[in-house]
Amino acid sequence: MPSGRRGAVEEGLTVLEAARQLGVELESICGGRQTCGKCLVAPEFGTFAKHGITSSNDHLSPPNQDEQAYTRKHGIDLNERRLGCAACITGDLLLHIPEGSLARKQVVRKTAGQLTIELKPAVQMVYVEVPAATLGGRGDWPRLKATLEAEWHLSNLEIDPALLPALQATLRAENGAVTATIWQQRTVIRLEAGYVESLYGLAIDIGSTTLAAHLCDLQTGAVLATETMMNPQVRYGEDLISRISYATDPAGMSRLHHAIIKALNDLSTLAASAAGIDPEAVTDMVLVGNTVMHHLLLGINPVEIGHLPFALATDEALDLYARDIGLKAVNAGARVHILPCVAGYVGADNVAVLLAEYPYLKDGVTLIVDVGTNAEILLCTSDRILSASSPTGPAFEGAQISHGQRAAAGAIERVRITSQGLRYKVIGDDRWSDELAEDESLRPTGICGSGIIEVVAELFSAGLINRDGKFVPDAVELHPMARYNGRLGELVLATAEESATGQEILITQKDIRAIQLAKAALYSGVRLLMDRLNIQHVDYIRLAGAFGSYIDPAYAMQIGLIPDCELAHVTAVGNAAGDGARIALLNSDQRHYIQQLVRKLEYVETAAEPQFQDYFVDALTLPHAVDPFPHLEKIWSAK
Amino acid sequence: MPSGRRGAVEEGLTVLEAARQLGVELESICGGRQTCGKCLVAPEFGTFAKHGITSSNDHLSPPNQDEQAYTRKHGIDLNERRLGCAACITGDLLLHIPEGSLARKQVVRKTAGQLTIELKPAVQMVYVEVPAATLGGRGDWPRLKATLEAEWHLSNLEIDPALLPALQATLRAENGAVTATIWQQRTVIRLEAGYVESLYGLAIDIGSTTLAAHLCDLQTGAVLATETMMNPQVRYGEDLISRISYATDPAGMSRLHHAIIKALNDLSTLAASAAGIDPEAVTDMVLVGNTVMHHLLLGINPVEIGHLPFALATDEALDLYARDIGLKAVNAGARVHILPCVAGYVGADNVAVLLAEYPYLKDGVTLIVDVGTNAEILLCTSDRILSASSPTGPAFEGAQISHGQRAAAGAIERVRITSQGLRYKVIGDDRWSDELAEDESLRPTGICGSGIIEVVAELFSAGLINRDGKFVPDAVELHPMARYNGRLGELVLATAEESATGQEILITQKDIRAIQLAKAALYSGVRLLMDRLNIQHVDYIRLAGAFGSYIDPAYAMQIGLIPDCELAHVTAVGNAAGDGARIALLNSDQRHYIQQLVRKLEYVETAAEPQFQDYFVDALTLPHAVDPFPHLEKIWSAK
Repeated sequence: MPSGRRGAVEEGLTVLEAARQLGVELESICGGRQTCGKCLVAPEFGTFAKHGITSSNDHLSPPNQDEQAYTRKHGIDLNERRLGCAACITGDLLLHIPEGSLARKQVVRKTAGQLTIELKPAVQMVYVEVPAATLGGRGDWPRLKATLEAEWHLSNLEIDPALLPALQATLRAENGAVTATIWQQRTVIRLEAGYVESLYGLAIDIGSTTLAAHLCDLQTGAVLATETMMNPQVRYGEDLISRISYATDPAGMSRLHHAIIKALNDLSTLAASAAGIDPEAVTDMVLVGNTVMHHLLLGINPVEIGHLPFALATDEALDLYARDIGLKAVNAGARVHILPCVAGYVGADNVAVLLAEYPYLKDGVTLIVDVGTNAEILLCTSDRILSASSPTGPAFEGAQISHGQRAAAGAIERVRITSQGLRYKVIGDDRWSDELAEDESLRPTGICGSGIIEVVAELFSAGLINRDGKFVPDAVELHPMARYNGRLGELVLATAEESATGQEILITQKDIRAIQLAKAALYSGVRLLMDRLNIQHVDYIRLAGAFGSYIDPAYAMQIGLIPDCELAHVTAVGNAAGDGARIALLNSDQRHYIQQLVRKLEYVETAAEPQFQDYFVDALTLPHAVDPFPHLEKIWSAK
Repeated sequence: MPSGRRGAVEEGLTVLEAARQLGVELESICGGRQTCGKCLVAPEFGTFAKHGITSSNDHLSPPNQDEQAYTRKHGIDLNERRLGCAACITGDLLLHIPEGSLARKQVVRKTAGQLTIELKPAVQMVYVEVPAATLGGRGDWPRLKATLEAEWHLSNLEIDPALLPALQATLRAENGAVTATIWQQRTVIRLEAGYVESLYGLAIDIGSTTLAAHLCDLQTGAVLATETMMNPQVRYGEDLISRISYATDPAGMSRLHHAIIKALNDLSTLAASAAGIDPEAVTDMVLVGNTVMHHLLLGINPVEIGHLPFALATDEALDLYARDIGLKAVNAGARVHILPCVAGYVGADNVAVLLAEYPYLKDGVTLIVDVGTNAEILLCTSDRILSASSPTGPAFEGAQISHGQRAAAGAIERVRITSQGLRYKVIGDDRWSDELAEDESLRPTGICGSGIIEVVAELFSAGLINRDGKFVPDAVELHPMARYNGRLGELVLATAEESATGQEILITQKDIRAIQLAKAALYSGVRLLMDRLNIQHVDYIRLAGAFGSYIDPAYAMQIGLIPDCELAHVTAVGNAAGDGARIALLNSDQRHYIQQLVRKLEYVETAAEPQFQDYFVDALTLPHAVDPFPHLEKIWSAK
């Protein structure tokens, strides 16, 4: 974890060696000499029914002298972390690889989209010179308040009581000259001596899998840094249902809550560091996430979202002090705004997508799809907005796929089947695999979501699989890389010699099935919404999120992931949820606007619609009216 | 400490023996056998300039085997606590006696005064039945909110976000039936399943020396328990100036803050236990205290109150969550209201006195005096209210007096000089010392404030001291208990045989001087306010606080502690500050009322008035036009 890679290795291998065999490259500077400490791993013990294993402390060799010396010196608890180059595998294990131990950091293409937002942040800074205290006169805060009212017309101001202890020293440091940061023209949340200009905010999209933060200068609107991080909750469950299930145990709930809070603190520190500012300079935050992330963030057990009628504790927008939910890597008085949710699985992230995309809708019907571990769907006309959520599961993110991995360096992201074999591209290299010199290789480590979709589409278009997704009986004769493993077909994407892992990279019959299930879930949700509008066709499709940025719309349509639509009208809109969070960060009027808009949404609960199951079963097959890809036709007709 | 008793003892005595010699009775069940642990004491190390000593760890014998065994078994840190029966004194020491180690608990006569207050607390409980969640419907909080609005006309309600984690389980426990506690018709601060009646509040007067809490049933207004406790900050300084000085060091500030917070938690627990309720049932609190206590409570360093212009960080009323200042022995959502302050040393306690007494003012001029470590003075007419604070110091509370002690069991509280000698009463016994059988004794342990005032008045009335407070040259001839110690006179109140300490109880020339300084400070403050009103005479005097309850007004007037006034118009009003806090607790309209009233106060800063010094010097002498007490005249004329 968190890549989800699993496999059998020889007993006695070190964790470092085993990880390499499985295509997980651990950082190592000392080359396994137990001195650099870069390959630290975090074993997770317990019975993991989902994985069918019991991970135990006994399944790792006891620490040797070098490991004991290293961990003692660096204050590392051997119950929590082991040196990958020292600990040997002697049985079933679940290992979490901390981000810092990974040799290849995650690549994320999305950056904060270019948007024009009127700058009107929820926090403002005002400079005043407060008259000195007088004998028998009013206290320091009442004098500051009176000055703010007289000079800035800010009436009925309150002060964050946490500012009172330092108030007098701050006022006296520069003879009453202070800069106050004021939230919503209502509350003084920060006070600094003298004239200061420093107003920063964080917009964070809390995805089930990825956390993405934009650090913005609230005086210019500029995005100073965009940082992403794996959601550390992944180790407790890949999809929403498994996290809800993990939260059933109070200890599990506590772990999920604290993991996300710690990650947000880390992310804030990272973003501030990237922007070259002190995290203390951040005074406002906007957070969005799906309903389960939303609840876990607030310490609310999401158990009620796990069963009918999928009730949320609250769907209202929330205004809090960051410190109240444990967010410490920001100013002590920093505020947090959390966008409202809709219902069920349609959360604040979907609301953020709406905030980002709604103003730019064209005439006609627009479908907005945000594919994550759940797919969130918005179907908009000029006067109606329908929303739904579909449980696609993490297959599109490369999880639950034999050699799947997230969209990171080394992942196969493009695949073309040729008569001679196939060609592919990996993330981090612009060349196709057949454009290399003879002794070169792209050294793929696995395949990511967009790659998987292309494989399935190419296999179908080439006639190697049928509408049911099954390898055709003569697939092996038709194509050199196709083969049968027992009764099930599979396609070899990369040989053991080519791959970085020393193992073949395959697409199996089971992988194709996983993609069929995921795309059927998404398509059925879309169909339900289309039924509500009584339409057969959408005019525009916007694909949001990282997946939407990597995916080739032609392939997505080819496998029936999205409904038919003129290809030129299908656009990727990047991290729209993050953009929406950023809009709410930069303009507090938009927070009010979206609170009104969200109550007009028509929510459709897919799980409760009898029609959903029918659509789902229908959508499992690959589309009937598919035109083979032209390049494939050429290949096969050439044969 | 905290009694302030000091003296020289023979080297090598145990702390338990030494304490007894000084009249401090430590609890002991085992009789000094180092097994019961009742006599634990807390040594304070460091140089205490005020006391002129350096208290050092070396000045106590090292722990013997029994003490080591006892402390190890009970997890006691020998650096913080020692067994009084084991540790022997080998040099100068400052020792704090924890309340639990004192054999005689403090006696406080004041109970919550009988007042008629319209019941309108800031918190209310409402019962509702919230409809069940529906598919795609609103979340639980919005549904609860809508129900509260529909059934109770409570609009725009907010919820304490800390309630969200438990909200869904509470709602489902009894099928949507819940009782919500709502603060100021604005915020839901507690939510309980089903129908519940349980609404309690605490009104606490935070005195420099004594903390007094009234636990009230907010549904009936009844006072269920009144508990008092020593302010644990006393160990860090007896008066306000020494506490401000102690707070100069950040570590000292932190100790003062945490000491008061811990004490309030202990007091809440005690009061709840006395009332037979769970501390969790307390949902509202009103706190009052002088400005230094107010700042220390809020974690604000009172340093600015320690010098001109005595600026307060804030003088506004404050509304907080109890948890925000660390008050935990109440409901997690409990609110705290802190009454406003005036300026300088005139704090929320004085405002509370005003709240309690102002509505009952008669025509004419009323002087309200609250004597604590500082004297707070209010001079009221039908259209003006003047306020001031005078630094009387702790002499009236028995501190800085040779054999002074607080008003506790064993303290001499009444004194009459007779031609044969004198007679006295001690707290806890209704008899005079000359009404006992021959082998009996009242076993006094010291003298408290009211006793000291009576001694001074009697000495003056009897002609044993002159207007300057000096023993007259022939005092020894005039009275058998008067004597000269070198050049200075003194009066023996109790012989070593009579006293509980085995030592004489004396009033020295220095003690008389201390009383003169204290009464001059108080009188000068009153005079300044009278000047402002251009009056020579007050119509009514109300003496607030514990001191005001013990003191005999005739004696107070005799020594010039208070201005002349018809004796029948001088009344003790008990703990008026506590009563004011209770009024604000029971009726939230009164909180708004006093916030308006307090801004009409005319604050007079005694320290800044040049006239103050003149008045002070004049007031040092005993009043010119004093009539000898009739009983004394009889005695002396009989001679």
